[in-house]
Amino acid sequence: MILEKKIPLRYWFDIIKWDMIIVFCFSIIVYLLSIFLPTFNVPVSIGAFLGTAIALVLSFKLSQSYDRWWEARKIWGAIVNDSRSLVVQTKNFAKHITPEELQTIANRQIAWCFVLGQKLRDLDHIKTLEKYLPKESTDALKQHSNIPLALIDQHSADFSKLLEDKKINDFQFIQLDATLVRLVESMGKAERIKNTVFPRHYRLALHLFIYIFLICLSFALSDLFSYVKIPLLMLISLPFFLLEKVAFTIQDPFENKPTDVAVTAIAHTIKANLKDVTGQEDYEEKEHDEDWFYIM
Amino acid sequence: MILEKKIPLRYWFDIIKWDMIIVFCFSIIVYLLSIFLPTFNVPVSIGAFLGTAIALVLSFKLSQSYDRWWEARKIWGAIVNDSRSLVVQTKNFAKHITPEELQTIANRQIAWCFVLGQKLRDLDHIKTLEKYLPKESTDALKQHSNIPLALIDQHSADFSKLLEDKKINDFQFIQLDATLVRLVESMGKAERIKNTVFPRHYRLALHLFIYIFLICLSFALSDLFSYVKIPLLMLISLPFFLLEKVAFTIQDPFENKPTDVAVTAIAHTIKANLKDVTGQEDYEEKEHDEDWFYIM
Amino acid sequence: MILEKKIPLRYWFDIIKWDMIIVFCFSIIVYLLSIFLPTFNVPVSIGAFLGTAIALVLSFKLSQSYDRWWEARKIWGAIVNDSRSLVVQTKNFAKHITPEELQTIANRQIAWCFVLGQKLRDLDHIKTLEKYLPKESTDALKQHSNIPLALIDQHSADFSKLLEDKKINDFQFIQLDATLVRLVESMGKAERIKNTVFPRHYRLALHLFIYIFLICLSFALSDLFSYVKIPLLMLISLPFFLLEKVAFTIQDPFENKPTDVAVTAIAHTIKANLKDVTGQEDYEEKEHDEDWFYIM
Amino acid sequence: MILEKKIPLRYWFDIIKWDMIIVFCFSIIVYLLSIFLPTFNVPVSIGAFLGTAIALVLSFKLSQSYDRWWEARKIWGAIVNDSRSLVVQTKNFAKHITPEELQTIANRQIAWCFVLGQKLRDLDHIKTLEKYLPKESTDALKQHSNIPLALIDQHSADFSKLLEDKKINDFQFIQLDATLVRLVESMGKAERIKNTVFPRHYRLALHLFIYIFLICLSFALSDLFSYVKIPLLMLISLPFFLLEKVAFTIQDPFENKPTDVAVTAIAHTIKANLKDVTGQEDYEEKEHDEDWFYIM
Amino acid sequence: MILEKKIPLRYWFDIIKWDMIIVFCFSIIVYLLSIFLPTFNVPVSIGAFLGTAIALVLSFKLSQSYDRWWEARKIWGAIVNDSRSLVVQTKNFAKHITPEELQTIANRQIAWCFVLGQKLRDLDHIKTLEKYLPKESTDALKQHSNIPLALIDQHSADFSKLLEDKKINDFQFIQLDATLVRLVESMGKAERIKNTVFPRHYRLALHLFIYIFLICLSFALSDLFSYVKIPLLMLISLPFFLLEKVAFTIQDPFENKPTDVAVTAIAHTIKANLKDVTGQEDYEEKEHDEDWFYIM
Repeated sequence: MILEKKIPLRYWFDIIKWDMIIVFCFSIIVYLLSIFLPTFNVPVSIGAFLGTAIALVLSFKLSQSYDRWWEARKIWGAIVNDSRSLVVQTKNFAKHITPEELQTIANRQIAWCFVLGQKLRDLDHIKTLEKYLPKESTDALKQHSNIPLALIDQHSADFSKLLEDKKINDFQFIQLDATLVRLVESMGKAERIKNTVFPRHYRLALHLFIYIFLICLSFALSDLFSYVKIPLLMLISLPFFLLEKVAFTIQDPFENKPTDVAVTAIAHTIKANLKDVTGQEDYEEKEHDEDWFYIM
Repeated sequence: MILEKKIPLRYWFDIIKWDMIIVFCFSIIVYLLSIFLPTFNVPVSIGAFLGTAIALVLSFKLSQSYDRWWEARKIWGAIVNDSRSLVVQTKNFAKHITPEELQTIANRQIAWCFVLGQKLRDLDHIKTLEKYLPKESTDALKQHSNIPLALIDQHSADFSKLLEDKKINDFQFIQLDATLVRLVESMGKAERIKNTVFPRHYRLALHLFIYIFLICLSFALSDLFSYVKIPLLMLISLPFFLLEKVAFTIQDPFENKPTDVAVTAIAHTIKANLKDVTGQEDYEEKEHDEDWFYIM
Repeated sequence: MILEKKIPLRYWFDIIKWDMIIVFCFSIIVYLLSIFLPTFNVPVSIGAFLGTAIALVLSFKLSQSYDRWWEARKIWGAIVNDSRSLVVQTKNFAKHITPEELQTIANRQIAWCFVLGQKLRDLDHIKTLEKYLPKESTDALKQHSNIPLALIDQHSADFSKLLEDKKINDFQFIQLDATLVRLVESMGKAERIKNTVFPRHYRLALHLFIYIFLICLSFALSDLFSYVKIPLLMLISLPFFLLEKVAFTIQDPFENKPTDVAVTAIAHTIKANLKDVTGQEDYEEKEHDEDWFYIM
Repeated sequence: MILEKKIPLRYWFDIIKWDMIIVFCFSIIVYLLSIFLPTFNVPVSIGAFLGTAIALVLSFKLSQSYDRWWEARKIWGAIVNDSRSLVVQTKNFAKHITPEELQTIANRQIAWCFVLGQKLRDLDHIKTLEKYLPKESTDALKQHSNIPLALIDQHSADFSKLLEDKKINDFQFIQLDATLVRLVESMGKAERIKNTVFPRHYRLALHLFIYIFLICLSFALSDLFSYVKIPLLMLISLPFFLLEKVAFTIQDPFENKPTDVAVTAIAHTIKANLKDVTGQEDYEEKEHDEDWFYIM
Repeated sequence: MILEKKIPLRYWFDIIKWDMIIVFCFSIIVYLLSIFLPTFNVPVSIGAFLGTAIALVLSFKLSQSYDRWWEARKIWGAIVNDSRSLVVQTKNFAKHITPEELQTIANRQIAWCFVLGQKLRDLDHIKTLEKYLPKESTDALKQHSNIPLALIDQHSADFSKLLEDKKINDFQFIQLDATLVRLVESMGKAERIKNTVFPRHYRLALHLFIYIFLICLSFALSDLFSYVKIPLLMLISLPFFLLEKVAFTIQDPFENKPTDVAVTAIAHTIKANLKDVTGQEDYEEKEHDEDWFYIM
């Protein structure tokens, strides 16, 4: 179950700190410049239209970042669905399967979810693998460069074995294989989001745009008193930087940040479900709370 | 059938009440400030461009919230389709099935729809389960942590039984299994929308943006008479807060609010259809009207 | 074939009539007010930015309405495809099927299309059913609460019969069943669009927004001569109301309005195709022209 | 292979010619009016905000038109894929098929692509049919009201024949049938785009909006010298009309215009591929260049 | 694994160089004009609204270009998934396959990925083919006009052979064939993006729009001192040209540019995975770094 927690104020403070300092220094510089270049005056509507333009580009960027984040969440939702289907299918297809065989498959699937989550976050997924699978099966796996793919390969070998032993029939075999194909797809999609950087020059162009806007705006406001102008400039620039930061934080959802897609929490939900369906007790206490501090 | 009802005025009044009070207090404060700081004057076009910028970000937010709501509605539409397909398939595939067996499957599917709806809304779904299924079958189910998944597991076991008894053939079995897989997918998708909070800092940034806009606007209007300015400010801020509220209410479609996706009404439609196809009478009077006050 | 016809001017006049009258009265009132409150003056850029903001929200609304309408059209496109596939498959799969059996299935599918279209538009679909199917088969159907679903049920029973009689094999049976599942999906999707009202408070907020914009704009223009101001206000408000109306008319595509998705025309296309493939003559003259006056 | 060619200047000139003439006449009229009504003055920001509003609605319209065009291109991309799959599957599935039988199927598929393209463009597709298929097979086809559907029907009959003759097995038969179902879908989707007019009142509302904007703008600019105003008005209106024209030209991608989806060029690519796979020589010289003048 | 590298400053400088020079010359010309036509003055809000309008159209264009780029990336993600599935399926389906046979299929799939990538970029894909496949198999392939399609044809023939030799059963055969169909689809989709030019008149209209905006803006700013106006105009036009450039560079993702989708890097990932699964060593050192200079 995914819990809601408040994001502490400190987090907010941290992400906008540097931009605000830059804007502050920047306003001071413009103020000083406007003393030495007093006749120089940009029309206010130039600043205003640039602000509108930037809000526009920013909104599209925010929308694209949100789509990446939401796609990442959808992929993990598909992993939940296919993990459930895989185990419900195996259980009901293979009448003569032993509970141990079923639990091996369920536990491998649980391990797959945790390992994939850790791998996407560039964390130590070997340790995670050892936590959820018995030692004898992890040794062979460690040789492989892509462990989640090797786990799928083991699933596939197991299902071929079940078919050979006539525990499932050909029809059931291809249904299970279709579920595996979908899991491979979800894995590949998550890797795609992880490995594909949002076009960098797009973001840089946007950043540059915000600064050009602030330059024009500060010259446009140069007939206001400076003690009003500096806080006003900071106030106006605040939501733009903040929204740009929001876009930036949600565009990469597998970076081990508090704003990530909650892959560990989702893997725990899968674990609870699969243990329930296969009749295993879910003994492990939730000592992993610190792992998913803010759930977004 | 989903009926249209007017949303009462009181509802409208309730959702904007607090924001309007805040804007009112706020205008008073700005008015008082403008008495003591009379020379301070922000150009109107600063306020205007901020308003455009906010309308832009708000529109995108509204669009994303609408997409969540519409996706939730689509998921429940898919549940309608797959529930119908499941029962039509079972009925026509299994020639030697008894009417009782067929009705057991149909009633379990009906129960699944109601239980899933209640569970998504965090309501007591055990009671709902008991209402639609006979007592002997509910006792075992209550042990499970995820009751809808356990119901799917029972469906799957039943279909395996039908296959074993040669009442359906292998081909028909996998067609039924494919329908079950789609139901598991719909369940998972609905849970995803329920459990994934809309990025919280996104909404907070937007809120902050609206207030910064109002601050700038009220200073920009400071040369108007105060008896005009306060209602004008409230008038201008009204649609922004209202649209933000609309976005907020539709972004979470399973919260037992009047603006929810009408999951109970949809479940009743499914019940009527499945009872019709399986030749059962749909005796229950519609005493559940109070459950779905406004249909959106 | 779908023909293009001009929308008569009268239609245009009708849909904007009331809004224009309201704006006219409204301008008069503002004009009178501005006589008694002559010193009251809102900056023009307030009106202008509200207009931009409203154009923005309206564009998104228009885009969402268009998506609903286009989705509805896609659904009926899918119905065309699956109707064709269903009959081509039946014809070529079942070598020993009699032409009469094939035509029964084709005619039932034709009836299904017409009945679904009428049902979505809340028209008398019993009469339509009787028009396209022989009397002996309609009597049983009338008992059912959802006649299109009952027709699918009959298709499904027929295909099971064909399988039992060994006229088609198991493989062909599941291909036909897959086509039926897609038809059930299209039916459910069309019902979803029909039964789901576009969030009502969204539209009301937008309406309110347009009026607030007009109030601000009319005060902002209060230094223009009244004989200029009233037509100007009406001219400016015209496209906003018109676009809002366009959005409103296309958001509900099954309401028996001239702007509907042309379900009857599409059903006639399907009829012509299926009669052609099954070697029946399409005798019926196109006396139904009045039924689809403007094709959008 | 699709080549890029420059669009000649004459084409550009042609599409904007009439609108520019209208705007010119229009500016003259406003200029004359402003001589007789010299005191009448609309604030510039009214014109400016209307321009922004129109750019907004126009952008959404452009986006929807682009989506139609891109969807049409995707459909023809799917036709390429499924044509290739169909022939590769037939070739490798049916080991005892004669090269002539295979080539008959490949050539029918090639003919299907060309005929569908011509039919969508309302051109003489009977002649095209005769060009790509031997005379004896075209005579029967000409009777049918929907020739591409009749070709699919022949494909389907051929595959049933291959199944009967045990040249392919049941499994391979349903794979081929699935490919046919996808081709029927692509055909239906292309017909949907062809036959569904973009909501006409939407476009008219937009046109009206552009003219209202120009009226307001020309009054707003009435204090500029007329020799400046008229070219300025034409300059400003130019991109709006041009973008509206771009939207209009790409919204209907099967109209035998230079901006169409290049259906003939795509059909030639399919022909080259299928001839290559089935070992036929692609003798025909590219004498059809005139057919696809500008490739977009 | 895809690495992140900084885009060097020189790259930035290169892509905006020419536009900045044009804007500079342009400002000079307007400055000179404004000396000889000193009374001519366009209101600033005309320039401002045109800027907003252009930002709007540009944002939509950017969004469409981004969608093309992201679709291209998704297609190559699907190629990763299906390549993995293909080899995992072959390995576990065909129990009596020799390691050599399996490696032949894996290596052909690796070659397919590299060859497709080179072909999309219009590079010499014959040489690439020879690098990854033994000489005896490449000779026949070189005859074909579409080599990736010929490779798929060989896959398909191999799977038919495996079926004939009873190494896989019918069910497994159609699962493998379904994977091949998906690979053909991905290939066709990538070719579609490669071969379909973004509507050219759309881009030209946008370019024209930017220049009209700059003309209006420079006249609107004509009362500023020229030493301020020229850098200001360049500063304002900079983000517009830059964003247009970003849109242009990402709209064509297979042009052998640094901003391409990283097809070679992705093919190397596939190679590593497939070698790992089939137990081959991935000897080749990464001497190809220069090939994928900036990863976007």
